[in-house]
Amino acid sequence: MPTFEPRNPDFRAAVSRRVVAQGYLTLLGVELTALEPGSAEFHVPYRPDIGQQNGFFHGGVVGGIAEAVMGAAAATLVAADANILGAEYTVNLLAPGVGTALHAVGEVIKPGRRLIVCRADIFAVAEDGTSTLCAIAQGAMAAIEGGSGSAATGR
Amino acid sequence: MPTFEPRNPDFRAAVSRRVVAQGYLTLLGVELTALEPGSAEFHVPYRPDIGQQNGFFHGGVVGGIAEAVMGAAAATLVAADANILGAEYTVNLLAPGVGTALHAVGEVIKPGRRLIVCRADIFAVAEDGTSTLCAIAQGAMAAIEGGSGSAATGR
Amino acid sequence: MPTFEPRNPDFRAAVSRRVVAQGYLTLLGVELTALEPGSAEFHVPYRPDIGQQNGFFHGGVVGGIAEAVMGAAAATLVAADANILGAEYTVNLLAPGVGTALHAVGEVIKPGRRLIVCRADIFAVAEDGTSTLCAIAQGAMAAIEGGSGSAATGR
Amino acid sequence: MPTFEPRNPDFRAAVSRRVVAQGYLTLLGVELTALEPGSAEFHVPYRPDIGQQNGFFHGGVVGGIAEAVMGAAAATLVAADANILGAEYTVNLLAPGVGTALHAVGEVIKPGRRLIVCRADIFAVAEDGTSTLCAIAQGAMAAIEGGSGSAATGR
Repeated sequence: MPTFEPRNPDFRAAVSRRVVAQGYLTLLGVELTALEPGSAEFHVPYRPDIGQQNGFFHGGVVGGIAEAVMGAAAATLVAADANILGAEYTVNLLAPGVGTALHAVGEVIKPGRRLIVCRADIFAVAEDGTSTLCAIAQGAMAAIEGGSGSAATGR
Repeated sequence: MPTFEPRNPDFRAAVSRRVVAQGYLTLLGVELTALEPGSAEFHVPYRPDIGQQNGFFHGGVVGGIAEAVMGAAAATLVAADANILGAEYTVNLLAPGVGTALHAVGEVIKPGRRLIVCRADIFAVAEDGTSTLCAIAQGAMAAIEGGSGSAATGR
Repeated sequence: MPTFEPRNPDFRAAVSRRVVAQGYLTLLGVELTALEPGSAEFHVPYRPDIGQQNGFFHGGVVGGIAEAVMGAAAATLVAADANILGAEYTVNLLAPGVGTALHAVGEVIKPGRRLIVCRADIFAVAEDGTSTLCAIAQGAMAAIEGGSGSAATGR
Repeated sequence: MPTFEPRNPDFRAAVSRRVVAQGYLTLLGVELTALEPGSAEFHVPYRPDIGQQNGFFHGGVVGGIAEAVMGAAAATLVAADANILGAEYTVNLLAPGVGTALHAVGEVIKPGRRLIVCRADIFAVAEDGTSTLCAIAQGAMAAIEGGSGSAATGR
């Protein structure tokens, strides 16, 4: 994994604030458990109301967590006044999301000026602490400098 | 759009039950507003707790709704005892999800025996009722016949 | 399908030159058969050397054609001095590419300033002229204004 | 990276034959340079006729190589009589494919019974031998047992 230089020395505080500011991540119960330049990790305890018809984590939750953890990883590398908005992402669901929690790892692969391309691995954590890879994702996050992103993804 | 023949004459009741049984869709406030063989529509009112840091619908919600509406469309075409599990999906976010609601339309493009390939369009609905396309998606849903899908996506 | 206003009145000549300038499209035998603001169509006759082990069109050819026809559709809407480079694309292969030719249709869904999001449908054309949808795609093309694109996708 | 057990002890010969049997890979000049259970590598020398309008490797070639190297990786793990067909794949292009060759690495992430999910990294190799990651991909390959795959992806 490559090493990245953060442009914002206070990136940890900035990304933590960003995660808290996303109502949806609070609703899902996302805990930000690790943050380094170019990477982020989330822990998401299971609850029936984020499940699907078989009691697994819902595929839309798994994908949403993947998108959000890639966004957090991307946000570690941008300027203090930049906003990050998802441009696109792809999720392959490998195994049912069965367990007491999801553990999500996002990392930046290519920090472009406009698009920051990332990958994510999502693990289902069993009661005994063992992890199973349950989804992989890749996607591009748009970095919108100097504003709140009212211009959306710059498009 | 092609016409499809449902294999389960009670597909409407089956898909409605399936949507209600997904805790996550209840949590998001998803309303199933239309259902035809090979297509489904959702209405999702805005709430701050499904938003992101700018007050738009969160990209992970938009993608999760896209996945779920494609799953509902796929579920209209399977046998009564079959389960549908998402195998993979891709979302391109086109514009910020700004508005009072999302309107999601999923349709089956290719109803395979094992994989049902679908597309979805997600619109943001403004207070005056006008709609803006805010995301497009495509993905494959796995049809697991004769069981609850404990074998996951058959993989 | 929305109507788009081309920014370059000579877009037909510009896109035709662009297609001819791509060695790979010549190698594949791609013929540009239709071009409107926001859309493009290709015809690609079958040859064994663009096939796979069963004599079908190779999945990599089908995907490459999808990417190229989306690029051509995007190129109809940019300024005369802009370059188009693919940023990302997704292909779902629906049926074997069996037939005498591929017919590819690309269309712009959202012409952003930086990213032009497109969809494509790829059909396999049988000897009797009937067409079967064999792949669907979506992707984002990056518009690089005022240069040859040496800055790649602006990243 | 996980370790996988091949089901076909002659997987090397089988995958080599498979690569040679794909006319399209011969046309592109693909050389199979490494093969282990669950992984494969390709080397593809640059030629103008696999380029685009700026003289870079064409995005459709980069994506096609990604799809093919994931197919080869998947093919290392299937039974002797199984066929592999691409079901879907996603490519993010990170940097222009500028160089004397592409180096492609495909690996299996999840070898399911029906779908084998893979990732690929594509590098552009410069004249001085240095490599730049120019694309990442992920996708699902369908394993069709006991036949030539006339049933396509089993769908």
